[in-house]
Amino acid sequence: MTVNTSVAADHNAPPVTAQLAQFVAEHPSRGWDASVDHEAHRTFLNWLGCAIGAARHEAVDAALAAVSVLQPAPQATLAGRRERVDVANAALINGIASHTFDFDDTHLKTIIHPAGPVASALMALAELKGSSGRQVIDALVLGIDVACRMGNLVYPQHYDRGWHITGSTGSLGGAAACARLLGLNAAQTTMALGIAASQPVGLREQFGTMTKPFHPGGAARAGLMSALLAQQGFPASARALEAPRGWAQVLSTKCDWNEASDALGQRFEISFNTYKPFACGIVIHPSIDACAQLRAQGVAADQVERIELRVHPLVLELTGKKEPQDGLQGKFSVYHGCAAGLLFGRAGEEEFSDHIVRREDVVALRRKVVATVDTSVREESVFARAVLKDGRTVEVHVEHAIGSMQRPMSDAQLEDKFRALSAPVLGDARTEQVLAACWQLGQASSLSPLLAALTP
Amino acid sequence: MTVNTSVAADHNAPPVTAQLAQFVAEHPSRGWDASVDHEAHRTFLNWLGCAIGAARHEAVDAALAAVSVLQPAPQATLAGRRERVDVANAALINGIASHTFDFDDTHLKTIIHPAGPVASALMALAELKGSSGRQVIDALVLGIDVACRMGNLVYPQHYDRGWHITGSTGSLGGAAACARLLGLNAAQTTMALGIAASQPVGLREQFGTMTKPFHPGGAARAGLMSALLAQQGFPASARALEAPRGWAQVLSTKCDWNEASDALGQRFEISFNTYKPFACGIVIHPSIDACAQLRAQGVAADQVERIELRVHPLVLELTGKKEPQDGLQGKFSVYHGCAAGLLFGRAGEEEFSDHIVRREDVVALRRKVVATVDTSVREESVFARAVLKDGRTVEVHVEHAIGSMQRPMSDAQLEDKFRALSAPVLGDARTEQVLAACWQLGQASSLSPLLAALTP
Repeated sequence: MTVNTSVAADHNAPPVTAQLAQFVAEHPSRGWDASVDHEAHRTFLNWLGCAIGAARHEAVDAALAAVSVLQPAPQATLAGRRERVDVANAALINGIASHTFDFDDTHLKTIIHPAGPVASALMALAELKGSSGRQVIDALVLGIDVACRMGNLVYPQHYDRGWHITGSTGSLGGAAACARLLGLNAAQTTMALGIAASQPVGLREQFGTMTKPFHPGGAARAGLMSALLAQQGFPASARALEAPRGWAQVLSTKCDWNEASDALGQRFEISFNTYKPFACGIVIHPSIDACAQLRAQGVAADQVERIELRVHPLVLELTGKKEPQDGLQGKFSVYHGCAAGLLFGRAGEEEFSDHIVRREDVVALRRKVVATVDTSVREESVFARAVLKDGRTVEVHVEHAIGSMQRPMSDAQLEDKFRALSAPVLGDARTEQVLAACWQLGQASSLSPLLAALTP
Repeated sequence: MTVNTSVAADHNAPPVTAQLAQFVAEHPSRGWDASVDHEAHRTFLNWLGCAIGAARHEAVDAALAAVSVLQPAPQATLAGRRERVDVANAALINGIASHTFDFDDTHLKTIIHPAGPVASALMALAELKGSSGRQVIDALVLGIDVACRMGNLVYPQHYDRGWHITGSTGSLGGAAACARLLGLNAAQTTMALGIAASQPVGLREQFGTMTKPFHPGGAARAGLMSALLAQQGFPASARALEAPRGWAQVLSTKCDWNEASDALGQRFEISFNTYKPFACGIVIHPSIDACAQLRAQGVAADQVERIELRVHPLVLELTGKKEPQDGLQGKFSVYHGCAAGLLFGRAGEEEFSDHIVRREDVVALRRKVVATVDTSVREESVFARAVLKDGRTVEVHVEHAIGSMQRPMSDAQLEDKFRALSAPVLGDARTEQVLAACWQLGQASSLSPLLAALTP
């Protein structure tokens, strides 16, 4: 296969790398509305719950075993585990854990899961440096801004080409956040972004395997190391993001430079972060929500002849697996998600366990789901119709699924989600300690109490 | 800039990942001609000389300082330094050092510098595992085969798009080599390649900065960690290289699948590896070679009235600097290169130092060089004529410069290059020990004597 798709290089791009670096280095602490600061706390809490919840997953065990070959220094905490590793590998492993359940946050405009690469790098580095909670929250807001702005700049062409945008922008976000936490100046931060630009992590081909959650972990690690290298004076191109052979033009055919600078320091991308109520890819959330609503309207599984869905094209492209064989495959099956929504009214990690995915009634119900692509249906919507055995039909139109910008999870719902993830690992008492510490993070002089409570 | 360059995905690619993995895992030890085995020794020796030579470079200092923040375990040797770090960071730092002088090997068909990512990962892992020299040579041949075959598969479109192909294929080569050294089976090696596929390192925008040599280092590190993860059962896509959203199709518009399997196990890409005789861009190598030949024919600098060159147009376009002021500028001056060739008979890193570039006799001699563009002269050729003060003339025509496939450097020339790089760092005695150990590597039961001699 040889296809000539030469794209004329853009030699006149604005100095995106330097602009973002200056912003990250010089924007004042808490230089944003209280709502932005609150969203940063919600983002951190949700990220941490996901990381704790997957702490005992076999993929995390495997990653930790591989890292242990390096005999890492016990510098940093792994959420929900007793082992300690060096800061770079803590960033890697907490990043892997936080995305393992596919239950983390989503910047809907780009489908980036921004906290994984950014918060994982930050928490590890903050432990080593003895940073305050305020420094962490500041760096989280700014790092996520960089990752998501670069995502906006290249989305969707970059994603369409096959990049897992969480990991490809995550190295940049992690580098920006760590540069801020280290107190690097604008010139040093430019180098940090430059070094990180050479390390995008993630191909979409890995979806459905544990190398998908490896991507935010690897990006967190790369970002953190890029900032440490820049701190030591290691040089990179100062135009690594925007040059003709730089990050954006090499990794995408769309490069909307304006996204980097538009309302920079006024509009914060973390404001558009959302949290998943369901432990699977966001594209099937409207469908699960619709089926849960059918259930709430009295539709029982044994009455159902057929569930008809009209869905956005991405739903079948990403989650069209008809006969998932285990929990992980279930996350890539709109059919299984709908069966869970209708049978249980929810789709947390438990509903994506091997056990549930293989249960006879679940298998039978998901075979009754028929999904049809309708290009007029928006990504956040679905039209669902239950055709019952007695001939009746019940219809639900979900315009915005729960967890969307329009119907965000409340703080209380986020806490419930956190508890369900954390309590089996840390127990109830520590779970409440961590919850309280997360909400208070911006006022904490140190992360020590939080970190202490993260060890089971 | 928005350009639509949608390329139809190729869903029918052969199972490249699995094919290469099986080859790496199952090809017999020393399953190739003696000439291939000898080339592997030459590749290793040349790589190690470059790494030793740059051991004290400020970029290596900076990288080591950044890594030291992690308090790495002293597992592995850094060529030419007393410090020891963990195996992953040793792979990183030796990889950076080996490419710092731009003096390492070149697979001319793809412009890949294959040893950096592969040998750097291997030497570190071999030290930890106590591997034999035979195991290292076997893994080097196979790892380089994977990197260069994947390079052939996507070159030149992949490079033209802006990827530094050394780092983008290097993660794959490093993973293959380390998988072999760890004794992983075909299925595990498939996973190692899969994890590595998500970690291409390197943008061409970094050329001219130290992030260029970071690329082979980062790739070595990524490859090594991918193999360690695969050893622990960490899963990835088994079609990560060839799938529509896999490595090749995401990173290149050309995907010539045949390159992966053509004469696999019979033709070895390491046979096409070449080594630079001169520490500068390849375009002025014929001119330096010609002047060194004039010297060998008895032409002395103080006899010279004038040196006349007829050169390919690129020579003056890329290296036409008449009065270079420092070592780096000297690399872009055909005039300086010729003066070095005539005065010293060589042009290694020392001859491109600030000191030599500014030396009075060097300055005087290079002002006697006159270069004329001749479009009939090929890129790999030059016509040189020395006009002497007594009226005599001596002419040399270089058809293929030393270091090309047609006129490869002899073993003795490689040794001289090695000595010039290593002696200032390790001293003469250790340099000879390392040289001897490199030539004997395939018979060595352990790398210990070699590694011991690498510490100054």
